[in-house]
Amino acid sequence: MKTITVNASKTYDVVIGNGILPEIGSRCRELSAAKTVALISDSNVAPLYAKNVEDSLTGAGFRVVSFVFPAGEQSKNADVYLQILAFLAENQLGRKDLIVALGGGVCGDMAGFAAATYLRGIDFVQVPTSLLAMVDSSVGGKTAIDLPQGKNLVGAFHQPILVLCDMALLETLPQENFLDGCGEIVKYGVLGDRNLLKLLTETKICFPREDVIARCVEMKRDVVNADEFEGGLRMLLNLGHTLGHAVEKCSHFSLSHGACVAIGLAVVTRGAVKKGYCSAEDGKAILSAISALGLPSETAIGMDDLMDSMLNDKKRTSGSITCVVPYGIGDCRRETMTLMEVRNFMEAGM
Amino acid sequence: MKTITVNASKTYDVVIGNGILPEIGSRCRELSAAKTVALISDSNVAPLYAKNVEDSLTGAGFRVVSFVFPAGEQSKNADVYLQILAFLAENQLGRKDLIVALGGGVCGDMAGFAAATYLRGIDFVQVPTSLLAMVDSSVGGKTAIDLPQGKNLVGAFHQPILVLCDMALLETLPQENFLDGCGEIVKYGVLGDRNLLKLLTETKICFPREDVIARCVEMKRDVVNADEFEGGLRMLLNLGHTLGHAVEKCSHFSLSHGACVAIGLAVVTRGAVKKGYCSAEDGKAILSAISALGLPSETAIGMDDLMDSMLNDKKRTSGSITCVVPYGIGDCRRETMTLMEVRNFMEAGM
Repeated sequence: MKTITVNASKTYDVVIGNGILPEIGSRCRELSAAKTVALISDSNVAPLYAKNVEDSLTGAGFRVVSFVFPAGEQSKNADVYLQILAFLAENQLGRKDLIVALGGGVCGDMAGFAAATYLRGIDFVQVPTSLLAMVDSSVGGKTAIDLPQGKNLVGAFHQPILVLCDMALLETLPQENFLDGCGEIVKYGVLGDRNLLKLLTETKICFPREDVIARCVEMKRDVVNADEFEGGLRMLLNLGHTLGHAVEKCSHFSLSHGACVAIGLAVVTRGAVKKGYCSAEDGKAILSAISALGLPSETAIGMDDLMDSMLNDKKRTSGSITCVVPYGIGDCRRETMTLMEVRNFMEAGM
Repeated sequence: MKTITVNASKTYDVVIGNGILPEIGSRCRELSAAKTVALISDSNVAPLYAKNVEDSLTGAGFRVVSFVFPAGEQSKNADVYLQILAFLAENQLGRKDLIVALGGGVCGDMAGFAAATYLRGIDFVQVPTSLLAMVDSSVGGKTAIDLPQGKNLVGAFHQPILVLCDMALLETLPQENFLDGCGEIVKYGVLGDRNLLKLLTETKICFPREDVIARCVEMKRDVVNADEFEGGLRMLLNLGHTLGHAVEKCSHFSLSHGACVAIGLAVVTRGAVKKGYCSAEDGKAILSAISALGLPSETAIGMDDLMDSMLNDKKRTSGSITCVVPYGIGDCRRETMTLMEVRNFMEAGM
């Protein structure tokens, strides 16, 4: 078992281990004086794990109320967010009560945003059940919902009080969903760990889970500690995401987030190599890891549609777009480009 | 003109003066690199002042887009909040852009909550147009919307970058609406300024506006500086509000906020005198100020309904309610009571 401590505006632990889900009740009890816990989960995860979590929480003396929403990115919207708020109010949760988010990134983002805004903020715990949520969204306090106009356009920074990652939960994860998290893992390799990329290329999807997840969480932790509110450095975590989000949106969310990030990573890598920013060798190492994990690296969506979509991306400041460009493994830089420059750069990598 | 500086997580000025509205453009320009300003206002205020504000902002080089919602507390809901978010997204506001809230407390709370959550937080400026908003809601960064289950159940702490209070705007305020702010002014007197209560009792609604507003803002500033996120001290500002919110809700918002706060203040004052916590003399001084300003001090709503409503108030931690009890002018204390104790205390003051 590994414990990684995040020192953001709140200090909290990310606990990574195998079979640690039954500890959720006692761990919450150590951290919270809540009387009631609202367990928020989705229709895929709840049938598998909600009872275990409820029993553990009840055993630790909490009253547990459960809210289950339909699984999928299309649930990450204002309607479900409002349903959660109404559920919290109807169950009379108070300021000292607690939300536990049991699920993937959609669940964590939405339950986290509800926790950030209900009564102007109550405590919440992340129990990520997908690889993607474990390595990425459950750490760092970014919460959000989508609008019809774009992904993650509304949200808040709200740190959890605990993140509990149980490797055992990955065993029920469909292969495609597991792959979904691999896109982000490659991203961490590009941002700063050549050995991680090498390990992924060699071991493929049989990579050592606890070690790799802990390494990604450590890297994310370091960035979040330095720049909690995304003033600058933290935006490096958007590597591959500017185009990735556009692909996701243009595919009407039929492509998974991880696949879209992999495509985004591949495009900016090829673009950076073609423009002479990044060495061919580093470019190859990145593209090899993407391919070894069975992730896609190309899209048939046209540049016009992608540009339209990027214009609505939240990382845009009027008239320009800030992209993260890989100058090499461990040397990624934020660059603010005009719309023309972005198009030119992306087209070189398509 | 008076400038009061608030040192919260952000430092910002509250500027109070007569005829200063035309300065809004240049003052925003000093503080913000925004290209676009979203001006948010309501259907009462916009016809009177929106053009002045738009002209001033345009003159300072901003692109201005305007959103007007139907005036009234019933607009402070999730629907209008989502309409504002969609408006911001459709007009492609970026992270460095700015929201200006031109209106009373409803406008400031809702535009502020939109600013707190759009792209996880963008800057906003408060231009309060009601007395209530000037002395209370525009300072301190509490933003919120109502749910069907209760007032202000959802929101965030998000400080403005500037608050501009123009006395000239009070001239178009209907008498009833002006009185609405007087409830909060009496509250500040009870919290810590015997002379303010005396002045109000003597001058009635002809009190010197700039001085009294500045005094209230100073007192609120001191509390917010000490306790931005309402860990303890700031809850003193809820004096009169626990019952006040319940009266407001039970009247289906037909009674104004200020009138409800006045009723809440009067009930806890009479209750505190009857219980022997507060001297009869101080009690009289408080009730005299309420009466001199023409504010109500009684309600015909029954205690059963009020208790039900208080149970949904956000200041409740499961099983108990925290009330602010006046032990005397300048000596108000938070007390956590059982439901039985609350009922007993409130009934003594009805």
